[in-house]
Amino acid sequence: MIIVLKPHTTEENITRVENLVKTRGLDTHIVRGTEMTIIGCIGDTTLIDPRLFEVDSSVDKVMHVQEPYKLANRAFHPENSVIDVSGVKFGDGHMGLIAGPCSVESFEQVLEVAKAVKDAGANMLRGGAFKPRTSPYSFQGLGLEGLDILCAVKEETGLPIVTELMSPQYLDVFNEKVDLIQIGARNMQNFDLLKQLGQVKRPILLKRGLNATYEEWIMSAEYIMASGNENVILCERGIRTFETFTRNTLDLQSIPVLRKKTHLPVVVDPSHAGGKWWLVEPMAKAAVAAGADGLMIEVHNNPECALCDGAQSLKPEKYEALLRQVKEIAQVVGKVF
Amino acid sequence: MIIVLKPHTTEENITRVENLVKTRGLDTHIVRGTEMTIIGCIGDTTLIDPRLFEVDSSVDKVMHVQEPYKLANRAFHPENSVIDVSGVKFGDGHMGLIAGPCSVESFEQVLEVAKAVKDAGANMLRGGAFKPRTSPYSFQGLGLEGLDILCAVKEETGLPIVTELMSPQYLDVFNEKVDLIQIGARNMQNFDLLKQLGQVKRPILLKRGLNATYEEWIMSAEYIMASGNENVILCERGIRTFETFTRNTLDLQSIPVLRKKTHLPVVVDPSHAGGKWWLVEPMAKAAVAAGADGLMIEVHNNPECALCDGAQSLKPEKYEALLRQVKEIAQVVGKVF
Amino acid sequence: MIIVLKPHTTEENITRVENLVKTRGLDTHIVRGTEMTIIGCIGDTTLIDPRLFEVDSSVDKVMHVQEPYKLANRAFHPENSVIDVSGVKFGDGHMGLIAGPCSVESFEQVLEVAKAVKDAGANMLRGGAFKPRTSPYSFQGLGLEGLDILCAVKEETGLPIVTELMSPQYLDVFNEKVDLIQIGARNMQNFDLLKQLGQVKRPILLKRGLNATYEEWIMSAEYIMASGNENVILCERGIRTFETFTRNTLDLQSIPVLRKKTHLPVVVDPSHAGGKWWLVEPMAKAAVAAGADGLMIEVHNNPECALCDGAQSLKPEKYEALLRQVKEIAQVVGKVF
Amino acid sequence: MIIVLKPHTTEENITRVENLVKTRGLDTHIVRGTEMTIIGCIGDTTLIDPRLFEVDSSVDKVMHVQEPYKLANRAFHPENSVIDVSGVKFGDGHMGLIAGPCSVESFEQVLEVAKAVKDAGANMLRGGAFKPRTSPYSFQGLGLEGLDILCAVKEETGLPIVTELMSPQYLDVFNEKVDLIQIGARNMQNFDLLKQLGQVKRPILLKRGLNATYEEWIMSAEYIMASGNENVILCERGIRTFETFTRNTLDLQSIPVLRKKTHLPVVVDPSHAGGKWWLVEPMAKAAVAAGADGLMIEVHNNPECALCDGAQSLKPEKYEALLRQVKEIAQVVGKVF
Repeated sequence: MIIVLKPHTTEENITRVENLVKTRGLDTHIVRGTEMTIIGCIGDTTLIDPRLFEVDSSVDKVMHVQEPYKLANRAFHPENSVIDVSGVKFGDGHMGLIAGPCSVESFEQVLEVAKAVKDAGANMLRGGAFKPRTSPYSFQGLGLEGLDILCAVKEETGLPIVTELMSPQYLDVFNEKVDLIQIGARNMQNFDLLKQLGQVKRPILLKRGLNATYEEWIMSAEYIMASGNENVILCERGIRTFETFTRNTLDLQSIPVLRKKTHLPVVVDPSHAGGKWWLVEPMAKAAVAAGADGLMIEVHNNPECALCDGAQSLKPEKYEALLRQVKEIAQVVGKVF
Repeated sequence: MIIVLKPHTTEENITRVENLVKTRGLDTHIVRGTEMTIIGCIGDTTLIDPRLFEVDSSVDKVMHVQEPYKLANRAFHPENSVIDVSGVKFGDGHMGLIAGPCSVESFEQVLEVAKAVKDAGANMLRGGAFKPRTSPYSFQGLGLEGLDILCAVKEETGLPIVTELMSPQYLDVFNEKVDLIQIGARNMQNFDLLKQLGQVKRPILLKRGLNATYEEWIMSAEYIMASGNENVILCERGIRTFETFTRNTLDLQSIPVLRKKTHLPVVVDPSHAGGKWWLVEPMAKAAVAAGADGLMIEVHNNPECALCDGAQSLKPEKYEALLRQVKEIAQVVGKVF
Repeated sequence: MIIVLKPHTTEENITRVENLVKTRGLDTHIVRGTEMTIIGCIGDTTLIDPRLFEVDSSVDKVMHVQEPYKLANRAFHPENSVIDVSGVKFGDGHMGLIAGPCSVESFEQVLEVAKAVKDAGANMLRGGAFKPRTSPYSFQGLGLEGLDILCAVKEETGLPIVTELMSPQYLDVFNEKVDLIQIGARNMQNFDLLKQLGQVKRPILLKRGLNATYEEWIMSAEYIMASGNENVILCERGIRTFETFTRNTLDLQSIPVLRKKTHLPVVVDPSHAGGKWWLVEPMAKAAVAAGADGLMIEVHNNPECALCDGAQSLKPEKYEALLRQVKEIAQVVGKVF
Repeated sequence: MIIVLKPHTTEENITRVENLVKTRGLDTHIVRGTEMTIIGCIGDTTLIDPRLFEVDSSVDKVMHVQEPYKLANRAFHPENSVIDVSGVKFGDGHMGLIAGPCSVESFEQVLEVAKAVKDAGANMLRGGAFKPRTSPYSFQGLGLEGLDILCAVKEETGLPIVTELMSPQYLDVFNEKVDLIQIGARNMQNFDLLKQLGQVKRPILLKRGLNATYEEWIMSAEYIMASGNENVILCERGIRTFETFTRNTLDLQSIPVLRKKTHLPVVVDPSHAGGKWWLVEPMAKAAVAAGADGLMIEVHNNPECALCDGAQSLKPEKYEALLRQVKEIAQVVGKVF
């Protein structure tokens, strides 16, 4: 941490700020420039809020130098993590290919889609049982009944399942039944929920919040890891920008950035990002070319009748054609299948 | 709801889309332009997701005309709502003046600040017992012990209290002890929590999410109202933009916009928006000039030692001077005290 | 400037980076932390692009400590600048009250509005002769003919005029006829134009770009000042964010921030920010409460027929009522009239 | 265009608004819903500013249905445009591979880089002679001397050149010497400059503004086309968002979106978007996978000493390796070389 002092700060005040830093258990090192003086803070600054010093009347600004995360930090864990989800591997060359309907509507619907995506090459099934909806009047998902449908389809097809957890009250049932527990974008900073995920043995799929910086996103992973569950997969699903023609702006730079900052795998969800089915294909291919460790794609056997998000769902035949190209691109960039 | 069809859509396809709309219980009305045809959908479209129709291959886009909220909508409730929080009124000319420390640190600290802000003219006490922090390693608040301190200070000073609820597990204790239950920006779309607030008899202070549009924010209020609790106060606290010198960009246009769209009171928190104490004074005055129904301001007797957010806290004497100007401006714009 | 080295950088590499810095005429100072080493760069770093060092394979990141501007910097010019525009003062307690139609449409129109706003208390006239329009098919302004109309109305009413310059080809005629030359948001980083403004004797009103940070905005003022014209007034007119109900998000925190960083006056244009006339009144009052040195407001005698931006124009009687409240608030915050 | 009236608008007012629409040469069609009435406007609404009607006291909002552009619109020009730049084709399967240094520094430097990128497979040379810099104190480019260097290197290598035009004063010399004239992000809405490009016979490379929506970007192309020059290539180079670790957020969804809305080719510049060389490789591959019609990449023989933007430049050998993978991916998605 670096503390930049205001111009013309007196020696007395420099000493005072230095002492303030030392009371937090850090060493200091003064750099006197021609126009300003800075204090380098030496020691473990991860646990210290830089704003504590900003309040001082001699301090101009405080700059963080060290990353505030440890467990998720590639610097302390140089190898790529491989997360195993009931046999499906994510990371270090392994790709997870997740597909399925936005919402669970019926056993027949999920089964039909599951079989089709499995035939196309998917290795995991998605489907929303509990749905976060902007409006209280929109379809909120089938809930536990939807979860049971997913389990029944898993039984039938052998595909592990991923579905979203919205409430701590269902933690135990998710831990029992769900192979990969998804935390949605809107709950990425629901810190209370994140802490409870430490008690779960299942891996977590942590979606990026609509306005989350890379650092905040990794810090949310760090919450889960620090609580006891180190199996976290990150999922880029678009951020909110000024552009409104697309639902969100898919930030594929996040893939190489996260690769550099953390050892955790990164999956991309192109369906929610754009909100239009014809954006899914080019963006899925782009994500793989950029190095993604997996794709999560909405597929529906009858998008016209989907209870939610039909507009962003691919039909099974389009998904199959897409996966063929995806695999070719994956080979170019060195992934294994 | 208006459905814009693609150019050159055939009569057959127009009829097909019309029928799709009718199966959702709406009437239709066709407008044939020189270059395109649109279908006006007549009936209650609040409950219908426009994306259901976007998936159709003849549909270019779907535009919402009606607001998707009812209970919070000024159109159906033209008078300003007045929310009474244990005797302190918000709305329709009444202003709530909330002040206190960011975090509850000790009984002595809170009491000292509470007395000072009460003397300065505040009519409600704030203080964080449960703190949402980006880092799992930062101070997370005193929890229930902090809540008890707030209650003890309320006992002593008579000031009603407002504090943040982060987890459904504390719903009952908050309902019992807290006069105004705050839902933080990061939980504005924690729909599970919002629904449970319907069972609570206390009013809710709903902060705007960092990336929430006006409509999404009102929809979150609608969630609480639709669940059974109509006493919601909205709190503008800044949104996330590209500008990073300030913590967030305070959007004061939200005050007149919300005034037009909803009957609920709007409070402004200038402390969290800017993240710097010297921004609080001008922004508090601006908020009142723009018509805010209340202010929530962080005040600390010793900001240099505050366990969190000291940099954005005012000292009591500054708060007092500020309130004098605030009251003069409030009179100019027709508020009552 | 501070250079943060990657963890485990060797002594040899540290020395190499140090030498790289020294070739740019700076001194260095090494701070060795427990986990990382940083190099403090001492000297005038204003002229040095930090990205020059970022490319080095041992460098993790480079952080700017010093502001990159000199002439506009309050640190080197502590007193508030007062800019005199043909007798109307901006800054240090003096407020400019600019009003007039969005576009110049006819002599009669401009004269009628000018008389009305002068009676209401305005001391400067605005009106667009050259209009920046998103569409090539929209009305582009009357051009030089519009400029002559403004001059004729100035003759009649005595109000100095402000209007937008879009092209270097009209520099001379603007220098001759226009009291305050406006540079629009879309040209804030038209560096070629900015440089040419140094040759002009008239003061410049520099609008904030839709995506300009505070620093970039001040740097654009620095361009003009460094070219020889130190009379720059900054104009906040809203930034682009994810919120689209309002045309732009008016950032009133810019007023106190600029006050701290620069000595130049700051004017607010609430008409363009919101794009709706009913937002102008509350935002104009808020701007003054926050300390603005002036207001620029669109007023039209017949907004329903305005050739552009009628939706954001006030009628003269509303403007007059607004100015009465504005002046009361200005007194509360210590402005002189 | 659709005009949504306020609830409970009287018949008299409906008729008045209808007449207002008719005076603009449009027909109207009324749709009476249960809660609101809308007026469909029939005719060519491209030339009409929707804000003209918004000002009416009975109007709630006005929604644009038709795209405001004609010449750039795919609806009126369904085939992909192929733009030929001195023999290098962009669009409809043809890819332009542009590479070269950020700034022109010397003949030797540019020649060395040009030869290297040509050997690697590039078919066009880039290099900045006039540089848009945020600071007036930064290196501003060699100007006309730089342009002559580019021409000399073109002579030597046969590679057509692309470089940025910042000022109308150099229009003639660019028209004479430059194969593809680049308009930078900061001048995307310098409408005065755009209009003058109509008089130029050379194709234009139009970069996306940092805060430009897809529609605004296409409208800027429309400006050039409507002025007489229909040879426009669009260049995605990242937009400004809240994320600041990367210089800009590269929006690859723009590729399929523009493909749908316009017939013009789309090129991607991954170097400026991320601002870090290690982001260029994954993003270049992703751009091609998403269907880009070309890549513009900064390559420098000695990035450590580059006068600007060295941090985002690839070394020639990395560029060569990248192009090998790029070509493999291009084949997968059906491009020809």
